[in-house]
Amino acid sequence: MDKLKVVIHVNDPERWNKALGNIGNLIKDVGEGKADIVALANGSAVTVFGDSELVEDMRTLADQGVHFIACRNSLKNMCAGIITCVSENKLPSFVAVTPAGITELIRRQHQGYAYVKP
Amino acid sequence: MDKLKVVIHVNDPERWNKALGNIGNLIKDVGEGKADIVALANGSAVTVFGDSELVEDMRTLADQGVHFIACRNSLKNMCAGIITCVSENKLPSFVAVTPAGITELIRRQHQGYAYVKP
Amino acid sequence: MDKLKVVIHVNDPERWNKALGNIGNLIKDVGEGKADIVALANGSAVTVFGDSELVEDMRTLADQGVHFIACRNSLKNMCAGIITCVSENKLPSFVAVTPAGITELIRRQHQGYAYVKP
Repeated sequence: MDKLKVVIHVNDPERWNKALGNIGNLIKDVGEGKADIVALANGSAVTVFGDSELVEDMRTLADQGVHFIACRNSLKNMCAGIITCVSENKLPSFVAVTPAGITELIRRQHQGYAYVKP
Repeated sequence: MDKLKVVIHVNDPERWNKALGNIGNLIKDVGEGKADIVALANGSAVTVFGDSELVEDMRTLADQGVHFIACRNSLKNMCAGIITCVSENKLPSFVAVTPAGITELIRRQHQGYAYVKP
Repeated sequence: MDKLKVVIHVNDPERWNKALGNIGNLIKDVGEGKADIVALANGSAVTVFGDSELVEDMRTLADQGVHFIACRNSLKNMCAGIITCVSENKLPSFVAVTPAGITELIRRQHQGYAYVKP
């Protein structure tokens, strides 16, 4: 069978726990390296890249091949407001940035990725 | 590359702000007319078509080619209850109606549209 | 036209009402047997398989051909915690079990199922 491909969409900070749990279960179920997994954060979900505890869980998954991507529009919006923010140059090294998360979500699906919103 | 196609699903009134922000970012990112964008509302999200402020934001996007579609089942359900409702003949002129939003969400994906739930 | 295929994802108990309403509307709209409908529950949404009222609504839909699937990881997690749980051998007879709901959500989409998160 072809490799499983999925983009996990997280746009609420409080959904990260579910999302990371889902990703962990996926890797446990199919085996490390057997799925192409992208976790795409936009909206206020990007603030969590400043939360050291969750970032450690993410790093463990990143080491197993999971791609974490943050929306640049959201990073800018958060830092423009009163909400705790993480500027782009302070992101953990395993987090990539895409200009517009919404575009990335569409392109990935057009490339055959499944979409899951935990 | 082929035109991007997406159906944005909104079923909670309080998610419209995120959804309209996402759509605005998408148009800014890829350019007006470069993506085929459908915003499909069902459940209580259809009540927002009576909210004059949000409707103005939607109209601006509709003028840029975004298709707004409301679920008829949801319009009827809302008007049968005590919740503020917008009857089908009071909808803004840029809003189309589909008999069942759920069917529309499936058909669009079968036609190659990506799915995003803000 | 080809048969409509959809996997409905439910990961919050309070979203079951919307999900079952959507499924009922879909069947009413396209006709019984005209759509291949899977309702996939993971996370705390699996606890609802112990709620007798909702289970009756589900059974009615199952009798109309809807496939209900529960995530085994979630069943185990719920029963490991203080949350009300339904052990796998107590599930209603119409509910199938998949080892990891997240994998099932991806596989179904790779098989051409649309994804909807009510």
